[in-house]
Amino acid sequence: MLEKTTRINYLYDFYQSLLTPKQRSYMSLYYLDDFSLGEIAEEFGVSRQAVYDNIKRTEQMLEEYEQKLLLFQKFQERSTIFKQIRKILDKQDSNQELTSLIETLEKLD
Amino acid sequence: MLEKTTRINYLYDFYQSLLTPKQRSYMSLYYLDDFSLGEIAEEFGVSRQAVYDNIKRTEQMLEEYEQKLLLFQKFQERSTIFKQIRKILDKQDSNQELTSLIETLEKLD
Repeated sequence: MLEKTTRINYLYDFYQSLLTPKQRSYMSLYYLDDFSLGEIAEEFGVSRQAVYDNIKRTEQMLEEYEQKLLLFQKFQERSTIFKQIRKILDKQDSNQELTSLIETLEKLD
Repeated sequence: MLEKTTRINYLYDFYQSLLTPKQRSYMSLYYLDDFSLGEIAEEFGVSRQAVYDNIKRTEQMLEEYEQKLLLFQKFQERSTIFKQIRKILDKQDSNQELTSLIETLEKLD
């Protein structure tokens, strides 16, 4: 369950710009601010079921975007490699310029 | 004009998975296989204007996706950094493992 939440949080991070403002509101209240479905429903004057359906549909859209663009998957692959690179740079007399370039690269993710 | 074509080609590369099959067909015939609008129109049994409108609309969608996701812009930023990294690795007694990790990273783009 926690793992699912983490995944949705990442997908939301990568693809939120492709969602509608309403989808973004519901998702961020539910996943980031830990509102309940009932609280969101009250806030927006809609039924709990409407909020639930919207969030489920949005989660599905996020998964579809990930299937198509693989941004999260590639991010994970790069993270693994960055970890290995950092290990090497920590061991050797590291070139400061190189280390800083790698850091810049990693921050772009 | 050539620069525009190059840009659209890159955007197409990054976002083609978000297009419909018809949009992909028109775009790839027009931009990759160098068909004329008339040839595509004949191939699909539609008017030249219909093909033109579809392609223009698709180009606009690609630009909108880029505005939202910045995949091409980030790719260009990373490319610049990879170039600088390669320069450093070429100069120093390069660590083979490090060089190969950087190559793997670059291939993920």
